[in-house]
Amino acid sequence: MSNNFVPVGLSNRHLHLSQEHIEILFGEGYELTKFKDLSQPGQYACNEKVDIVGPKGTLKGVRILGPARGKTQIEISLADGFVLGVKPPVRDSGDLAGSPGAKIVGPKGEVTIEEGVIAAARHIHMHTSDAEKFGVKDKDIVKVKVEGKRGMIFENVLVRVHPTYALEMHVDMDEGNAAGIKNGDMLEVLK
Amino acid sequence: MSNNFVPVGLSNRHLHLSQEHIEILFGEGYELTKFKDLSQPGQYACNEKVDIVGPKGTLKGVRILGPARGKTQIEISLADGFVLGVKPPVRDSGDLAGSPGAKIVGPKGEVTIEEGVIAAARHIHMHTSDAEKFGVKDKDIVKVKVEGKRGMIFENVLVRVHPTYALEMHVDMDEGNAAGIKNGDMLEVLK
Repeated sequence: MSNNFVPVGLSNRHLHLSQEHIEILFGEGYELTKFKDLSQPGQYACNEKVDIVGPKGTLKGVRILGPARGKTQIEISLADGFVLGVKPPVRDSGDLAGSPGAKIVGPKGEVTIEEGVIAAARHIHMHTSDAEKFGVKDKDIVKVKVEGKRGMIFENVLVRVHPTYALEMHVDMDEGNAAGIKNGDMLEVLK
Repeated sequence: MSNNFVPVGLSNRHLHLSQEHIEILFGEGYELTKFKDLSQPGQYACNEKVDIVGPKGTLKGVRILGPARGKTQIEISLADGFVLGVKPPVRDSGDLAGSPGAKIVGPKGEVTIEEGVIAAARHIHMHTSDAEKFGVKDKDIVKVKVEGKRGMIFENVLVRVHPTYALEMHVDMDEGNAAGIKNGDMLEVLK
């Protein structure tokens, strides 16, 4: 039997904002405030939420994740894309070229980004020591098995290794529902 | 190379109604009217839509599929379940025991069912001749492979064989989005 199990986390729609955009949306000099820590060290869910507006509809009250980033990035599911009327490409975080844009509406202002709306590609965060244990390295592609009535094997799962990461697989809500899994379920990485 | 490919169809939320419930919702003696034929012979999408009401929210304008059935059955995604505030079990069609209920609101009346809200388990309809070609029989469980960025292998796929069926795999919107597939995509059945 394999001991290569990872806990899974389901990512609901969220966005990361540049400091410039934070100040447009919330006011000059504004700083995001922490709602709760996330599993990845240094990352946190913020109290602040904004509306995302697309050509066909609006996603209201979408949570911001902190801290501020170099570039604004909106991560939604394909189902959310139908609501907005945009087709987010499935991309790794930070790979935004050619992705659709959207309007972001905050309490003090709004900003329209020309690109930055993506569906996050499934991936596993690993601490360097986890990667050693699993026998994988940064940017490797692995498969992950889900048991149960909605059992499946996720292919093309990107491994991301960094000394600041905690072991966790991230999928979006479409993927979590399709596989019948919930936060904290343990999934097997196939070699 | 295998020739065992099936076209896929993504099932959006829908419901099947008993004749008794059709008459409560639309009026005495009412008969459903056809909007368009579905891929399965004799099955059709109706012009008629209803609202589905759960403890937390409402799904508005859910399409009815005809013809009338012996028992009313509401098929939604797990994401839809969050909107309604119910947890649909993943079930094969007709297997409704112990599933949650909901209120159905039509133009002439409303009806509350005690059970019947499910998330349809992924399955493949096959004509008898398809089953022969694929080397499977009714109620077999197979795996189905999806290629691409969101590639995966669906496990626990139920095969349903009948002389009136047309070859098609059915998944729900969560599963379709998770796999990055669209109606008519050809998927490989693994032996």
